[in-house]
Amino acid sequence: MRILDRIDTPADLKSLSMSELETLAVEVRQQIIDTVNRNGGHLASPLGVVELTLALHYVFDAGADQLIWDVGHQCYAHKLLTGRRDVFDSLRKAGGISGYPKIAESPYDSFGTGHSSTSISAAVGMAIARKLRGEPHRIVAVIGDGAMTAGMAMEALSHAGDLGLDLLVVLNDNEMSISPNVGALSRYFNRLITALPYKRAKQDVSSFVKMLLSERAVRRIQDIEKAAKGLITHDAFFQELGFNYIGPVDGHDLPLLIAVLSNLKLMSGPILFHCRTEKGKGLDAAERDPLAYHGIKPMAIKQEDEEGLPRFPEPNNVKPPVRTFTDAFADAMLEAGAEDDRVVGITAAMPTGTGLAKFAERFPDRCFDVGICEQHAVTLAAGMAVRGLRPVAAIYSTFLQRAYDQLIHDVCLQQLPVVFAVDRAGLVGEDSPTQNGTFDLSFLRSVPNMTVLAPRDDVDTALMLRWALRQDGPVAIRYARGKAPTIGDVQGRDIARGEMLRQGGDATFLVVGPCVAACLKAAEALADEGLDVGVADVRLVKPLDEALLDQLADRPIITVEENTLDGGFGSAVLEHFEKRGRLADVRVHRIGIPDVFSEQGTREEQLAAHGLDAAGLAAAARRFLAGASKAARPHLSVL
Amino acid sequence: MRILDRIDTPADLKSLSMSELETLAVEVRQQIIDTVNRNGGHLASPLGVVELTLALHYVFDAGADQLIWDVGHQCYAHKLLTGRRDVFDSLRKAGGISGYPKIAESPYDSFGTGHSSTSISAAVGMAIARKLRGEPHRIVAVIGDGAMTAGMAMEALSHAGDLGLDLLVVLNDNEMSISPNVGALSRYFNRLITALPYKRAKQDVSSFVKMLLSERAVRRIQDIEKAAKGLITHDAFFQELGFNYIGPVDGHDLPLLIAVLSNLKLMSGPILFHCRTEKGKGLDAAERDPLAYHGIKPMAIKQEDEEGLPRFPEPNNVKPPVRTFTDAFADAMLEAGAEDDRVVGITAAMPTGTGLAKFAERFPDRCFDVGICEQHAVTLAAGMAVRGLRPVAAIYSTFLQRAYDQLIHDVCLQQLPVVFAVDRAGLVGEDSPTQNGTFDLSFLRSVPNMTVLAPRDDVDTALMLRWALRQDGPVAIRYARGKAPTIGDVQGRDIARGEMLRQGGDATFLVVGPCVAACLKAAEALADEGLDVGVADVRLVKPLDEALLDQLADRPIITVEENTLDGGFGSAVLEHFEKRGRLADVRVHRIGIPDVFSEQGTREEQLAAHGLDAAGLAAAARRFLAGASKAARPHLSVL
Repeated sequence: MRILDRIDTPADLKSLSMSELETLAVEVRQQIIDTVNRNGGHLASPLGVVELTLALHYVFDAGADQLIWDVGHQCYAHKLLTGRRDVFDSLRKAGGISGYPKIAESPYDSFGTGHSSTSISAAVGMAIARKLRGEPHRIVAVIGDGAMTAGMAMEALSHAGDLGLDLLVVLNDNEMSISPNVGALSRYFNRLITALPYKRAKQDVSSFVKMLLSERAVRRIQDIEKAAKGLITHDAFFQELGFNYIGPVDGHDLPLLIAVLSNLKLMSGPILFHCRTEKGKGLDAAERDPLAYHGIKPMAIKQEDEEGLPRFPEPNNVKPPVRTFTDAFADAMLEAGAEDDRVVGITAAMPTGTGLAKFAERFPDRCFDVGICEQHAVTLAAGMAVRGLRPVAAIYSTFLQRAYDQLIHDVCLQQLPVVFAVDRAGLVGEDSPTQNGTFDLSFLRSVPNMTVLAPRDDVDTALMLRWALRQDGPVAIRYARGKAPTIGDVQGRDIARGEMLRQGGDATFLVVGPCVAACLKAAEALADEGLDVGVADVRLVKPLDEALLDQLADRPIITVEENTLDGGFGSAVLEHFEKRGRLADVRVHRIGIPDVFSEQGTREEQLAAHGLDAAGLAAAARRFLAGASKAARPHLSVL
Repeated sequence: MRILDRIDTPADLKSLSMSELETLAVEVRQQIIDTVNRNGGHLASPLGVVELTLALHYVFDAGADQLIWDVGHQCYAHKLLTGRRDVFDSLRKAGGISGYPKIAESPYDSFGTGHSSTSISAAVGMAIARKLRGEPHRIVAVIGDGAMTAGMAMEALSHAGDLGLDLLVVLNDNEMSISPNVGALSRYFNRLITALPYKRAKQDVSSFVKMLLSERAVRRIQDIEKAAKGLITHDAFFQELGFNYIGPVDGHDLPLLIAVLSNLKLMSGPILFHCRTEKGKGLDAAERDPLAYHGIKPMAIKQEDEEGLPRFPEPNNVKPPVRTFTDAFADAMLEAGAEDDRVVGITAAMPTGTGLAKFAERFPDRCFDVGICEQHAVTLAAGMAVRGLRPVAAIYSTFLQRAYDQLIHDVCLQQLPVVFAVDRAGLVGEDSPTQNGTFDLSFLRSVPNMTVLAPRDDVDTALMLRWALRQDGPVAIRYARGKAPTIGDVQGRDIARGEMLRQGGDATFLVVGPCVAACLKAAEALADEGLDVGVADVRLVKPLDEALLDQLADRPIITVEENTLDGGFGSAVLEHFEKRGRLADVRVHRIGIPDVFSEQGTREEQLAAHGLDAAGLAAAARRFLAGASKAARPHLSVL
């Protein structure tokens, strides 16, 4: 029986010996590798914090003490140790446990953290609540070095330092966020690490360590010199922000972590504890290439080596075999970059995910990864555009929410030619409700001067990028996570107009981008039943192709979008007919995502849950047309 | 003739002697005081940067060189010196010049900056563009110390430091943003200022100054010792971010500023030049109480002192005499705070503007001004809420755009009881298109779990706050800038339902909050013409009062909102009837703000421009009902 199988709550850790804890670390790591290989998920990051998680749960009393993981995909070990071991194999599956902390899932999950850099703000809020309510617990935020570069983390540090509340911020520094970090702050962390404080100030550090560690703690670590090597006593940057700084410390040295944390627990005021960890720790391939193993697809581990241990295939084999929207965008960027040297790429810590990495490789001087700084990314693009460049900001839909004001105030109000490549729009699958991009059509189309496009396939993706780069104002191109098989004729497309892909006398699916394929299937199925439903790809969500809408108004229209129904594309269609004064003449039915945060599952499961697969669309059309045909529709006679 | 009258472009400054420049500073200051007293506008901040503006235009070549003012209301002197002297009396008037930099207004306005903390990002973008295009000009961002505390400014500093581009950031440090600054970073600036580097390191500084200043520049300043007093050579914080730091320097010492800037112009790499200025400089009352003179109403200066110079009345007299929505909120917060000690207030550098200052005075331990950090403010509130407090985040509509992701991801997704007091929703008047709050109904109602309320008057404002604090999830209460006279019965209001304020057989105005008063007037006017139009206050924008909507569906409905029509309240009404399958049975006409950034003017002018005044509403109703009566509406027969 594994030690892990005896850990039902974090309290069970407290009676373990150091060697049992070390064994537990191995077991936890193995469990994470096994489960992530089965289910897919984040890998390098959870493997990096196993010892840190054990140490935190050994020292603190989760449940009473508040522990916040930032960004949340570090939390797998935490989940295994907090009563979710037996359901861990449901990780990221529909109905299963989340790949991020989730308040509703466990009392040990203090705060949901699907987007990064929120932990210190939440912790400061909790510390204020604790003070006002006279509670005694501890509050710990564990934040990655990548997450630390976001502006809101700095806002929170500054506030925390000013208030002087008791608060422990653990900087989990693995020298990269999702991609290697950028920015001066990141370089600064690196300098801290490469400094050799032990040599420079051996006396000081030794006495500091003795002061810091209690007698008992000192006995527990084998070698105080070893501890001293990892400690420096002063850091100007965090000190200036009002924090006591401790570190950097080897984040895989479990006895040392426990000793230091035990003492930090007794200190008051804001403390920054700097841990140095390795992403992918414990899995050779992931240690060598943490970027490739940041997140993996299910069954990415297919082989075993001679000792029967899992061996990861080369990262290239992990890639999905079919061309995605992201691939199409990435290739189109290469072309655009070759044709026009004003074209530059901007990403916020997602060069691989957005496909901009290819562009960066080919045009290193014209590609800018700003780190987890979406606000800066968008205003940076505005600054470039105002001086004659043609910036393309590639940002996931869910993260573009972070730069909404910059998009409104700096780009759209000034009508600057910034292209937004809005990847992962719509449902994103297993990741978490936090990562769905189901609001962008609503929040983008309400902004003046904005043009919003949605490609249905790879060909449109490329054409739209080319078209967008020729416009004088901002253009957003939003596309889904997943495959982008070519649909319809490749030649002769007019990207500034919608396109009838299938004629239908009984009704029309009026469709946004990625839903086109499912609508074509649904139309096929309906045809077998004798219902003749057409399919029109709208392409333009803003401004609408009004001619197309008016032309379709003589038969029922079913709008289809992978976006919330509240204020989305379907509403724009209603608005159009209201403006025309034709609401009474048209039959419109809207299909999309209802007013909820969609739960995790595969993208297929999510789409089916919302009736956005072919079967659901056909069923909805059937129901709607049955209702529509029952009504005599005498209003048509007054036209 | 004033010297100012000879300055048609900044180039005209270059031939002035130092004493002429000093005289010009006095003239510019006087012009600003006169014009702001006539037109209203920002006062303390523009007065603080007169010398800095003169020095920058003397040293740099605006037009070629790019100068960014952050936040933009510092720009009045800049406007006077860049060809807008003769139209300066149109400041903030409809059709006149803007109170902020505006690209469309002048080639000397490099970047629009109505929201703060954007300048460094824009400057980095410009610097990248300059490099790629091989251009030679200089780029200068002038940023206030308040603006510097925002996360995105830190993101940009870190990126600029990393890239090492030539870039001058002038930190205009007046120890306050709009209100006195908060946060450790701000305290840090203060420590820099109070340090006495001259005394501590006289030798070093003197030789540094000699190195820094050219022979010619040295001759131009009377006293090198005077210069040395203002200079220190090292600052850990900015140095760590990759910037060369120079300062702090007296920002009102024109010769010194010119000397230092002349030399900084020759330096390469990212430079942070720290100037110390006084808000309200040159006007005693404003120097004494810069907060009261941050922005003033027209004709706030009514008296002259014995020497004929303007004398400001006491700040209390500057206040508008009629109770505003903000006043109603402020009073309600006091009551809520007294009743329930879980209630806390949060503001992002707007304690006075939001009315939270009263609450802060009464409950200092329960009110938190986080500075210009909207992102942190909202997640801070989430952290408080998850631990049992009842936070109220009072943030202007336009600035809430900065915290959209935090509102979605940290508050709404976790269904936390945070109350958003969304002040300045709708049109804000003279300030600038950048400050209008005309998108919030669209971007708030598309977020699941969010409740959106809009009070029509002071009584509802108070009741809604009380109601919101009893809910288990997030609630936004959005209200307009301006007066909130009581409308309708005070007793017996049910805040969770809409209210018929006037019955009408021919049609109904279905109205969001502050538009109710105008609709009642319009209904009155229409009644005189024999049109019987009712008025219903919807109160709830999300979820809708569906019973009320269904009840009104038997006659034409005119929705009225001070929000963009794209995805706003009217669209929610259309969506409701689409869901009901009743679109063909109802007549709906939507009135609101079209898909543009509304230009400056008085609120009355802005409302009239969009047909949202009583006359416009009556006219729209007349037109709509004429159209509606022409149609035979046979569809009613099938009901």
